[in-house]
Amino acid sequence: MPQTLHVEKHFTASEVVRDIVIGMSDGLTVPFALAAGLSGAVESNGIIVTAGLAEVAAGAIAMGLGGYLAARTDAEHYVSERAREERETDEVPEKEAAEVADILRSCGLADEMVTPVVNSIRRDKNRWVDFMMRFELGLEEPDPKRASRSAFTIAASYVAGGLVPLGPYFFTRSVHAALIASVLLTLLALLVFGYVKGRFTTARPFRSAWQTVFVGGLAAAAAFTIAKVIG
Amino acid sequence: MPQTLHVEKHFTASEVVRDIVIGMSDGLTVPFALAAGLSGAVESNGIIVTAGLAEVAAGAIAMGLGGYLAARTDAEHYVSERAREERETDEVPEKEAAEVADILRSCGLADEMVTPVVNSIRRDKNRWVDFMMRFELGLEEPDPKRASRSAFTIAASYVAGGLVPLGPYFFTRSVHAALIASVLLTLLALLVFGYVKGRFTTARPFRSAWQTVFVGGLAAAAAFTIAKVIG
Repeated sequence: MPQTLHVEKHFTASEVVRDIVIGMSDGLTVPFALAAGLSGAVESNGIIVTAGLAEVAAGAIAMGLGGYLAARTDAEHYVSERAREERETDEVPEKEAAEVADILRSCGLADEMVTPVVNSIRRDKNRWVDFMMRFELGLEEPDPKRASRSAFTIAASYVAGGLVPLGPYFFTRSVHAALIASVLLTLLALLVFGYVKGRFTTARPFRSAWQTVFVGGLAAAAAFTIAKVIG
Repeated sequence: MPQTLHVEKHFTASEVVRDIVIGMSDGLTVPFALAAGLSGAVESNGIIVTAGLAEVAAGAIAMGLGGYLAARTDAEHYVSERAREERETDEVPEKEAAEVADILRSCGLADEMVTPVVNSIRRDKNRWVDFMMRFELGLEEPDPKRASRSAFTIAASYVAGGLVPLGPYFFTRSVHAALIASVLLTLLALLVFGYVKGRFTTARPFRSAWQTVFVGGLAAAAAFTIAKVIG
């Protein structure tokens, strides 16, 4: 994309970081809560491990494959909207030019400047369509290779996250001991993950750390309570 | 936001629809896969219902509360970036003006038009900052009320979706019968949901329908296989 804007001075998390955050957030939280919940209801770590791994597989597929298909749909949406804009600049150029003028006015361009700027943009058909895609529709051209890479990163991060809370259940037969180890290990992991995520995405990593712990802890407490009541 | 662009002729799913799709997609898929997986490994519907409801609670909290906090962080990010742009237009106006010029050039504006347009934008400080927020940083002003509404919609849709595959396990003691009913009911629900989602978001609702069924079915098959092997 030739018109990528320079944003070097403002921090923006890279897309890989974003995918890792998406996958690991849920991977650390939901299998953790499920395992903690089942610990309040069943007497065998075998069932907890089975349920946990089934959940991890399902979650990774739902997030990864689901995300992949959504990204492919976005890419097709871009192509079809672009074709439509191209058609419109051919068939109803005055209407499209009026739309450019509206956009420019909404950007604060003085009235007397609008017409010459519109004419300047219209001169190059490709750029005109670029302009409509970006400023009328707010669509950026998707990277075709990104969809599968993103799906894989999200799924792998979900699995990596999910193995943390399940780990202790592999190594002991005592549900109680495994639960305590899992809670301590996962809260620590959520704290570190929340901090690192906060470093990448906000100016307040400590708040991100405790918020991440809070969401995971609340999900686990809710799951535990529900399982205890009905189990 | 005064500068919302008119996009009436291109379909864009409303944000509520988007939230329902996000919540229900995962809600129909992951609890379904978990219940199907456990059906291959345990002999009591009680455990499946317990695990399923624990997962639904955890997933709804993780998605809803997690989404709420992420949206709040986005809103703060917008405010802090806006304050930074305001400071920069005061302190280094020529540098910011040069950035406006770069953006305009990348939009296809002819060189001789760039300076007058930049001067026109600079005249109103507020619009100048608006311009930088939108076109340099690609940030739209978030709606402060949206975060909590969105969290609630996503969580409720997750719960609604999750109760579909779990339903049959409430009504029979036979794991086998419940599994068959759950698979049929949920695949049908995924088909309908995928079709409706496709009507809202793409031009190809039938493809969306079978893709949604495919993701849910694959997640359930993977969970079932894993649970069968280790259970």
